[in-house]
Amino acid sequence: MLIEKKLEELGIELKWGRNPRHNRVYALQTGNLIYLSGATGGPDYRGKVGRDLTVEQGYEGAKRAAIGLLTSLEEYLRDLDKVKQWVKLLCMVNTAEDFYDAPSIANGASDLIVSLYGERGRHSRSAVGIACPAGNSCIEIEALVEV
Amino acid sequence: MLIEKKLEELGIELKWGRNPRHNRVYALQTGNLIYLSGATGGPDYRGKVGRDLTVEQGYEGAKRAAIGLLTSLEEYLRDLDKVKQWVKLLCMVNTAEDFYDAPSIANGASDLIVSLYGERGRHSRSAVGIACPAGNSCIEIEALVEV
Amino acid sequence: MLIEKKLEELGIELKWGRNPRHNRVYALQTGNLIYLSGATGGPDYRGKVGRDLTVEQGYEGAKRAAIGLLTSLEEYLRDLDKVKQWVKLLCMVNTAEDFYDAPSIANGASDLIVSLYGERGRHSRSAVGIACPAGNSCIEIEALVEV
Repeated sequence: MLIEKKLEELGIELKWGRNPRHNRVYALQTGNLIYLSGATGGPDYRGKVGRDLTVEQGYEGAKRAAIGLLTSLEEYLRDLDKVKQWVKLLCMVNTAEDFYDAPSIANGASDLIVSLYGERGRHSRSAVGIACPAGNSCIEIEALVEV
Repeated sequence: MLIEKKLEELGIELKWGRNPRHNRVYALQTGNLIYLSGATGGPDYRGKVGRDLTVEQGYEGAKRAAIGLLTSLEEYLRDLDKVKQWVKLLCMVNTAEDFYDAPSIANGASDLIVSLYGERGRHSRSAVGIACPAGNSCIEIEALVEV
Repeated sequence: MLIEKKLEELGIELKWGRNPRHNRVYALQTGNLIYLSGATGGPDYRGKVGRDLTVEQGYEGAKRAAIGLLTSLEEYLRDLDKVKQWVKLLCMVNTAEDFYDAPSIANGASDLIVSLYGERGRHSRSAVGIACPAGNSCIEIEALVEV
C-alpha cells in the first residue's frame, strides 16, 4: 500500500461508493489491462478554461480528474500498488475558443500520476480541447492501466 | 445466435454490405480484442442535440450508432454470441453550446447493448460533447469488444 | 528496413530527438501493443479546416501527423518493419462550425499508412471534429499498433 501512503502524505483522500448511474462501470478489466471510464474535475471545476477558469484552475481540475481515476482503480483493485504501468490517458479539456494549450491543463493529471508512480506512471497521452466534457466539467480523462 | 434472436424480437435488423470508403476497416482484431471503427447515428439523426435535436432524438441516434457497431461486429464475427465482454465505448456527442449532458445521450447505446448482453454488455465508457461527428451525425461511437 | 526505404522514396524524413515535454512518453508498449501519443500536423498546419485551411491543406496536415506517429514509432522500435498491424487511429480534426467531413481530412494519415504498409496498414478508425487539438493544430491523431 505504498501508493496509498503517498496519497495520504499529499492529503488526498479517495472516496469510494459513488452511485454508478447509467449502464456502465467505472473500471473494466480484460487480460491484464484495466479500462477506466472518463472521470471529470467534479463540481468545483466546471466551465471553459481560458474563459470561465484560469490555467491554474484547469490544472487543478485535471488533478481532481486523476483522483477520480485513482478512486475507480482503488475501488476495483483494493490496492493501488498492483498497477504495473499507466499505459494511456485521453485528456479532453473544456477549452475557450481561443485557448490552444490543452496539454498544460492535462499535466495536472499526468504530474500527479508520475509523482505517485514514478516511471510506472509515465504514459502515452493525447490532450485536446473539446466542446463539453460530461456535466460541463473543465476536463474529462479516460485511462488505460496495466496490472 | 441468441443475440440475433433478441435483435429480431426488438425489430432490429442489421444491414450488412456497406461500402467501405476510406482506407480503414469496420472491425480489426488483435489477440482477443476487436476494435470497432466509429459508427454514427445515420442520416435521420443529424445535427446538434439541444439545438437541432431533442434529448429523445439524440438517445435514439445513439441507439442507431450502437446498431451500426453491432452490424460491424456481426459482419466480422458472423455470430454475435461470440462476444465475451463489451469492454469500452467512447461516445462523442454533437452538442449545442449549452448542452452539458452527453452521458444521457450515450445511454441510448449503452442501454441497448446491456439489454442484449446483460452483464457481458456492461462496459467502461466516456461520453463527451464534441464539435462534429462524421457527417454532422448527432453522435459517433467507437467500441472495444473482447471475444 | 523496407518501410524506411519506401519513406525515402516518398522523400519523407523522420526527425528523431524531439524534446519530450510533459510527463508523458511518445510510445508505450504493453504486451505486443504500442500506444502512440497524439501527434499533430505541426507548425505549418494550424487552424480550422473549412475556415483557416482548405480540405487539401487539412489532408496534408493529417499526413504530417502520421509522419509524427511514424517518427515516434521508429524512435521506439528502431525498425518500422517490426509493425505487424496498425490497429486503430483516433483522428481529431480542428473543424470550422459548418465543416462536417473530418473523415476526408483523416484520410491524409490513413492513405500514407496504407501506402507504406498495405494490408498491415488498414486500421479501425474514428474521425471527428473537435474544438482544438494541441497547439491549434488542424489535427491530432493517436494510434495503436501491434508488433
